[in-house]
Order: sequence, then structure tokens, then C-alpha cells
Amino acid sequence: MINNYAIINGDLVLKTDAKIGITDLSIQRGYGIFDFFITIDNQPRFLDDHLDRFFGSASAMHLNNGINREQIKEWIQQLIEKNNLPGSGIRITLTGGYAEDGYTLSNPNLLITQSAFTFNKENFYKGTRLITYEHQRQLPEVKTIDYLQAIYLQPFIKAQHADDVLYYQQGEINECPRSNFFMVTAANEVITPAKNILKGITRKRILGLTGFDVKEAAIHMEQLPTIKEAFITSTTKLVLPVLKIDGKTIADGKPGKTTTEIYQLLAACK
Amino acid sequence: MINNYAIINGDLVLKTDAKIGITDLSIQRGYGIFDFFITIDNQPRFLDDHLDRFFGSASAMHLNNGINREQIKEWIQQLIEKNNLPGSGIRITLTGGYAEDGYTLSNPNLLITQSAFTFNKENFYKGTRLITYEHQRQLPEVKTIDYLQAIYLQPFIKAQHADDVLYYQQGEINECPRSNFFMVTAANEVITPAKNILKGITRKRILGLTGFDVKEAAIHMEQLPTIKEAFITSTTKLVLPVLKIDGKTIADGKPGKTTTEIYQLLAACK
Repeated sequence: MINNYAIINGDLVLKTDAKIGITDLSIQRGYGIFDFFITIDNQPRFLDDHLDRFFGSASAMHLNNGINREQIKEWIQQLIEKNNLPGSGIRITLTGGYAEDGYTLSNPNLLITQSAFTFNKENFYKGTRLITYEHQRQLPEVKTIDYLQAIYLQPFIKAQHADDVLYYQQGEINECPRSNFFMVTAANEVITPAKNILKGITRKRILGLTGFDVKEAAIHMEQLPTIKEAFITSTTKLVLPVLKIDGKTIADGKPGKTTTEIYQLLAACK
Repeated sequence: MINNYAIINGDLVLKTDAKIGITDLSIQRGYGIFDFFITIDNQPRFLDDHLDRFFGSASAMHLNNGINREQIKEWIQQLIEKNNLPGSGIRITLTGGYAEDGYTLSNPNLLITQSAFTFNKENFYKGTRLITYEHQRQLPEVKTIDYLQAIYLQPFIKAQHADDVLYYQQGEINECPRSNFFMVTAANEVITPAKNILKGITRKRILGLTGFDVKEAAIHMEQLPTIKEAFITSTTKLVLPVLKIDGKTIADGKPGKTTTEIYQLLAACK
């Protein structure tokens, strides 16, 4: 395997040697934020959108170490050149920092890592199966490192013959742990929940598409049986058709027409 | 400063050198559990209670690395002898382990750390001021590393001239982020919430006291103005009188009679 590097607080290190001290508040208290974007042909995709969200998350969580956007962009570029992984995912994590008392916010640690990643078009046709579960993520609009519930539910998801969980709270769908949810109604409206969610960058692109009746609105659990099509979106999934929810097949169990059109537009989107 | 050691996966290391790789799921996804107990004169206090809860948390969160209780006790003893910190707090943390894909549970990392700690009796007379906040911790009965909301709220707590936050949900008090809540009624009943909480070891001791009318029952927000006394309990706080809630002084603003009696009994408890 070719050497893979990471950047910790500005220092280039082999990923296999990349460590942080155990007094960091991510390890002690699950405290940190991150963002994740992909590169295609060594070009970051929607980098400014991701950095906008990254700095928004950092500010919301009182994580400020004076690092500016240009410095982070320089480090990303350095990593891209050093690793030479043209198709990749890059993750920028900012943790709560080293806390001697194990509780008080300190100077954040900044970690930048890169892994190989390319879209696999076959995934689109395979689609995904969701299982609903009542849960509301805390601080949902912030991209924190909190995936406690999602990872806790992994054995449950598997036992239910599903691929991922779809959270709802008080009868309203909110999101999947790592993706946004969209439904297409019989009248061809494309609807995605407006609130209590993390606002995805792919979701943002879809809300900006012309030629579709796309809107943000509440999706109630009782609407699920009426769904014509459904899909989830994320940076790595792009648009992934939902073929089953709670074991029930949606329509004919194949990617729908609107879902396919949106997928094709997004895949072509720069 | 005298060298302080930690144990990582059985290896004794200087705490200043104690690190874990950044692919660990605690850093990536806030996934891990822990427990914390104190030593007095190098004797762990209520160790088996804490280990019972530790193994319960590990099992609930699918964290199993085959480590048994006797092995952990040996490592704790090794650390106690090596560090020679007669009055201390010892924390045992079990993380989600190194996940290459950043999401799938792996072989957990076990971290044992020790810091100096002794009870400060003056804290009892100073008491504490709480501010209520609507929140329900996820997986409340498991001692996970998730303190995201609590640390996020630190500036809010300070701005409200309070020392800690008291969570409630749908009108019912549950707990503070690191302690259990008790109230004493006009009829001298000592009440602590029964559900949606982490069951503290000090709380367990108080529920077992004779000579008091102690019970587990719901505490509703509207009961707060009627409180005769209130206190919070934890391993390091033992029994700490609550002197103010939401800026309003409880009774005469001094530790109450029942609170003081319970504190004295607990302080003498072996």
C-alpha cells in the first residue's frame, strides 16, 4: 500500500502514525465537529460549501483556534499533492482539544485525513432499504461527531435486513444518520424535511434544481405508504433510491423516474 | 511534577505520551463508554459497583474486547502502585476502536487514567446553582462519553450565573450532566427521578439509606417552587446542596438539615 498522509494541527504525518493525546475532549466527552467532501481528479467538489458549514459548526460549538479558511485550503492542497489520490474523500475534524480536567473546552485539535473514494454507479441501481426509528439528533443543524445512536443501532439495522435507519420524532421524518431524505408524491412534488436536520450540501444542490417541484416541508410517518418514490442524498451517496422502508417495497421496487433524473443532473453538476 | 502514568490496552505509558490513532471511533464518531471512581488512601471506593456499570455499558454498546474484570482490576492496581497518588480519580474508557471506514465498530481501545483528587469539604457549604434546560440525553442509562450538550452549554451556564445545568424533558426533571438530582419535600420525603437517567453509584447508596423516606419518583417542573431542600450527587461531589435553581434561592439559601445528614452518612460510608 502506498503511504497515506494526514495533517494534524498543520503537521504532515503518516496516517498510520497519526495520533492525538487521550485527554482530548473527543475521546473524553465525544466533543468535536467535522466536514467531509470528495475530490474528483484531485479537484475538491463544492469545497466552499463544505468549508462554510465547517466554520459554521465550529463557531456554533465554541471551537475556535484562529485557523482561517485560506490556511485550511493550503493544507488540503498539500495533502492532495502529497497523497496523489485523485478520487478521494477528505475529512476535516476539529475536536474539543486537550482538557486537563476532562471537561473544559480547550485549544481545538485540527485533523485532516484523506481516503480513496470514487462513485460506484452500480450502487444507484442497487438502491437502499431503510428502517424507521424514533430519534432526534441533538444539535441537528451542526455537523458534530455524535453518531452514537447510529452506530449503536448497527446490529438492529442488520437484524431488520435494512441498510440504514430513518429517524423520525413525534410522527415527523427528519433524516438518516448520514444523509437527507426526500420523497416524491403522486403529484410529482419532491419534498424534503425543513427542520431538525443537518442541511446537506447535496440537498442544497437539489433544492436549487429547476424543472422540478422541489420544496422543504414536513413529512409525516402516515405519508410513507403513499410515497411514489423516495431517495436519500449525501456527499458520497449523491442520490440513492430508497427501495424499501420498514420492509415494504416502494412502488415497483426500482429507482423511480424523478429520482433517476435528479441523480443524472447531480452527477453532471460541477 | 511527578510522572503520571496511564494504561492503554494493557501497556503502561506516561500520560503525556498516551495517545490513540485518529481513526478511533471516539474521535471519528463520539463512540465510547467509561466509568470513573475515586481512591482514598490508595483504596478504590465502590469499585465493584463501578465495574458492574462499566461492563453493563460496554455490553449495551456492543463493545467487547474479551477483557475480564480480574484483568482490569490488575491494571488498576498496577496504576495505583506506579503513580502513588493515594487520593485520586481513576477513569476507565472503552472506545469504538480503529475503524478503517470511519463507521463500523472495531476492536475497542481500553484507556485507564488516574488524576489526583480529594474531597474538599468546603464545597459542601458553598453548594451549587443550577439552571434548568430542556434536554434528554440519548441512551441515558448507559455511561457513554456523550457530553456534547453539556459542554456546548458551558458558556450559557456561565452567562446565567449558574454552576451546572439541570435537564428536564416534557416537564419532568431528569438529571444534571454528571450528577443525579434529589429534592426534599415539605413532608421530608427525599425524591429522585426514577427513569431517563444514568443511575449513579452515590444515588444507589442514598436509596439504600435507612432512617429517611427516600423514593424514586417523577419530579415535575412545577414542583420546583415547593422544594424544601435539593441536592445533587456524584462520585466526586458526593452530596452537594443546590442553593439556587433558575436564579431563585431555595429556602434560606443554605444546606438543609436532611441534605446535611445524608452528606454526613455518605461521607462516612465505606
